Amino acid sequence: MKISDLGGETALIKLIRDKYGVTGAGGLALGIGDDAALIRSGDGFIAVTADLLVENTHFRMDINEPYLLGWKSAAVNISDIAAMGGIPTYSFVSIGLPDVEVAVVEAIYEGMRDVSAKYGSVIAGGDTVASGVGIVINVTQLGAVEPGKAARRNGAKASDVILVTNTIGDSRAGLELLLKLGLDEARRVSPNCVQSHLKPEPKVNEARAAVETGKVHSMMDLSDGLAADLGKLCEASGVGARVIADALPISRDTHIAAARLDMDAVCLAAGGGEDYELLLTCDPGDVGVIAQAMGETESSIRVIGEIVEGDRVTLVLPNGEEGPIGGSWEHF
Amino acid sequence: MKISDLGGETALIKLIRDKYGVTGAGGLALGIGDDAALIRSGDGFIAVTADLLVENTHFRMDINEPYLLGWKSAAVNISDIAAMGGIPTYSFVSIGLPDVEVAVVEAIYEGMRDVSAKYGSVIAGGDTVASGVGIVINVTQLGAVEPGKAARRNGAKASDVILVTNTIGDSRAGLELLLKLGLDEARRVSPNCVQSHLKPEPKVNEARAAVETGKVHSMMDLSDGLAADLGKLCEASGVGARVIADALPISRDTHIAAARLDMDAVCLAAGGGEDYELLLTCDPGDVGVIAQAMGETESSIRVIGEIVEGDRVTLVLPNGEEGPIGGSWEHF
Repeated sequence: MKISDLGGETALIKLIRDKYGVTGAGGLALGIGDDAALIRSGDGFIAVTADLLVENTHFRMDINEPYLLGWKSAAVNISDIAAMGGIPTYSFVSIGLPDVEVAVVEAIYEGMRDVSAKYGSVIAGGDTVASGVGIVINVTQLGAVEPGKAARRNGAKASDVILVTNTIGDSRAGLELLLKLGLDEARRVSPNCVQSHLKPEPKVNEARAAVETGKVHSMMDLSDGLAADLGKLCEASGVGARVIADALPISRDTHIAAARLDMDAVCLAAGGGEDYELLLTCDPGDVGVIAQAMGETESSIRVIGEIVEGDRVTLVLPNGEEGPIGGSWEHF
Repeated sequence: MKISDLGGETALIKLIRDKYGVTGAGGLALGIGDDAALIRSGDGFIAVTADLLVENTHFRMDINEPYLLGWKSAAVNISDIAAMGGIPTYSFVSIGLPDVEVAVVEAIYEGMRDVSAKYGSVIAGGDTVASGVGIVINVTQLGAVEPGKAARRNGAKASDVILVTNTIGDSRAGLELLLKLGLDEARRVSPNCVQSHLKPEPKVNEARAAVETGKVHSMMDLSDGLAADLGKLCEASGVGARVIADALPISRDTHIAAARLDMDAVCLAAGGGEDYELLLTCDPGDVGVIAQAMGETESSIRVIGEIVEGDRVTLVLPNGEEGPIGGSWEHF
């Protein structure tokens, strides 16, 4: 049986977690299956996450720039640490390189260093090797989680409200523009959507502000798209969810891009990916406290639906129709 | 300027370390440039190392088996932790996969899990993604280093003796046999050399025994071959070295393989790679203490030369000739 017959990436990760994953062994408080693993350290935790990016599978250099590739490679890991309620500390960069210009390598590292520095982390080590198959980057990011501040996926409760930060769908719109128009023209049409896709900002301060209220029941970052990620959060929590299409925060840029792409903005927002916004749930009565905490950051937060009993994750359209929320990133 | 013009992998790593590496920042006691980074944790350290392996650059599935690929991917990282004087704890496995048989993926993880369990570590997380360019594996391994037990590369002193564990060259001989004869025939000719190449045993207990004597001045594992690695140790320590060819521990298997391959056994031992034996230096008077400690493990240790003033790393041949020790793994 091939990976695609098993059910692709998601099914494979479950198999690996169930057969080879360990949680609760020694100092390991949380293993495979959340944004990051948690290792006990004093009264808190060290959070550890990793992301592997393969050229022409996860990125293409003809619609990217080395600096931005470096930025994003580090940023997506910092985002995972943030989503656990953690503070990014050290990253370990493994890079496989064809015999490219040294300036390309330097630009990649500058991007990684800049986003790391912006969020308080440093490149502490890694591996540098040749690659006969294009650029390969793995970043393993460590972070510190203070006692009582760990935010996990599995705490959502029926009647919780579901919140996301800022707007979603911009990154997917940017990707679609890049694939259709190339880097220069896509940037001309929608600099903001392209920026969202190529240079995401991890929500470190926002996640900290949220967990410091003590009111967050569950939290994760949106990397695979709202539909897929909310599905994971619900599965981990043993609940279902209803998302209201009209409540999705969609930027003017994404609406314009959707029109240009002849795509539906709600589909981009619900099915898109790589938003690196926060998805979280809390008691309906605590929305104000969290929104107020978020007000201290540069981000906004909005209620997009509610957690329900059961295991269905649905989208309620403006006409009242309710169906399964669909679409995700699956590469197999 | 391309990477190959700069001077390949070693030159690139130096550039990255000098421009983007950080040491001494916050809790980071040691950054890029040793077997592992060291992060302060209580009175000791957390050691972190990473190794990236790309199919058809670092391994070939036609002369390998999935289980052994998994074993070695984890083992080489465990070896780095051992070489710092550390105890392996947790690994984070990032794997990029074409749409292969699920059984292949399971065998890779079984290999990683088995060698991890053998040396006290567990797979705690990582990333599982598709790859359009063959199998890509990055393992980031964490370990615990107790107070006073960290072993670094930079402590070698002129007049130190140089020691290695067991025999060297076997793995390189195994690789040459595999490349020339294929998996089945190579195994028939020299099961031991092929085993050394495909299923290395990290020297965790040996390294612990050595550092517990308190007599080790510098230590690293042999991954890029004695010539290259001793060069790195000498550069880090600001010293030179003289290695006596007649003193190199070369197995009977490697001698037989060398004859079959029409290669020189001393070249295989001095220039080979992926031995995953320990290279260490100490006062001449402390060899006995270290050998005795090593006697409690399954390994032997032998003096192969001495540290000298200057920066030359030379090999003294049986006829008395002395020249630069050569040969290494460089993929660019």
